[in-house]
Amino acid sequence: MKIERTGMLLILSGPSGAGKGTLGKMLLEQDDSFCFSVSATTRAPRPGEVPDVDYHFVDDRRFDELIGQNAFLEYATVHGNRYGTLRGDVENRLRHGQNVLLDIDVQGAAMVMARMPEAVSVFILPPSFTELRERLVKRGTETEEVIDRRMANARQEVGQMDIYQYVLINEAPPEASFLKLKSIVDAEKLRLSRCTVTIDD
Amino acid sequence: MKIERTGMLLILSGPSGAGKGTLGKMLLEQDDSFCFSVSATTRAPRPGEVPDVDYHFVDDRRFDELIGQNAFLEYATVHGNRYGTLRGDVENRLRHGQNVLLDIDVQGAAMVMARMPEAVSVFILPPSFTELRERLVKRGTETEEVIDRRMANARQEVGQMDIYQYVLINEAPPEASFLKLKSIVDAEKLRLSRCTVTIDD
Repeated sequence: MKIERTGMLLILSGPSGAGKGTLGKMLLEQDDSFCFSVSATTRAPRPGEVPDVDYHFVDDRRFDELIGQNAFLEYATVHGNRYGTLRGDVENRLRHGQNVLLDIDVQGAAMVMARMPEAVSVFILPPSFTELRERLVKRGTETEEVIDRRMANARQEVGQMDIYQYVLINEAPPEASFLKLKSIVDAEKLRLSRCTVTIDD
Repeated sequence: MKIERTGMLLILSGPSGAGKGTLGKMLLEQDDSFCFSVSATTRAPRPGEVPDVDYHFVDDRRFDELIGQNAFLEYATVHGNRYGTLRGDVENRLRHGQNVLLDIDVQGAAMVMARMPEAVSVFILPPSFTELRERLVKRGTETEEVIDRRMANARQEVGQMDIYQYVLINEAPPEASFLKLKSIVDAEKLRLSRCTVTIDD
């Protein structure tokens, strides 16, 4: 018997500060089968971010063009900036058997789920909203106003997590949560709908 | 945040000799959250089997009575013997948050899936049919005729494995396959549909 697998699309969501970025990075580092989909965004690069590696940084006019070309699997506005997942990029990777990680918000996730019901979706929760605010404050990169807006968004996102398949609470340090995420990924590699089984004898 | 879980029903199937019995035993030994559902059967006890622990051993008349009482989640005839999963036993365990392991054939699995679509189903494949026959011969407990019948059944079961959610090839030794089964189980513990999330602050 032989099993061949097609790529899995993994949606990772959760409030800003819940730690989905860290868990996603650990997954990309420790599981060669995964790659990141490079999104397009209208927000300014943060220090250290590399264009076309972290994001395709585009202006509003170009973003509108891409919408017009139906180039997005999903797009959404988060904290006043626009983010879009390039459909061609994702589909191409999946076809070649790569697993693709999408770090997107709840609105975008809903669109991807509707278009690709076979996607695997995981919602990352913070231990508490108090802890979440502390993490955002500790970052030191955002004003109080931005933090308040992120907290309001966080409550809204958590209220909509029922559309996800899996949920996990990301307690610090993230190693235990990563093992849980890894078990989801390893299990989903065994999902029959992504496998072609050859009966060989 | 706090997550409470309800029990998961895990269906383990695969041809006789594929090793689902071994993997199931390892799971029961190494994961306290799992228990075995004790089935009713009309077959004679094998040496070492304990009544009402391994199976409820009943005669055909009693088995018919249980069917009449709608007491079975599924029942099927395998190799001339009747096996039935007691619905009340399973539902009671799940309600109390226990995870229940069902080691059943493809016919029975289909009935359970239809009645409980939230069940988790895993199909265990042998490395090859040649290897499967060797394993059955090595057991030394069956006649050639029985082995031929089991091989025919095996090919039939493998041909119907598309109804399962997960598939894995059980190469000897079983430790690597067990880790795969464990990843499925650990992932399914995080499935949102079996979780009640309390937002606490």
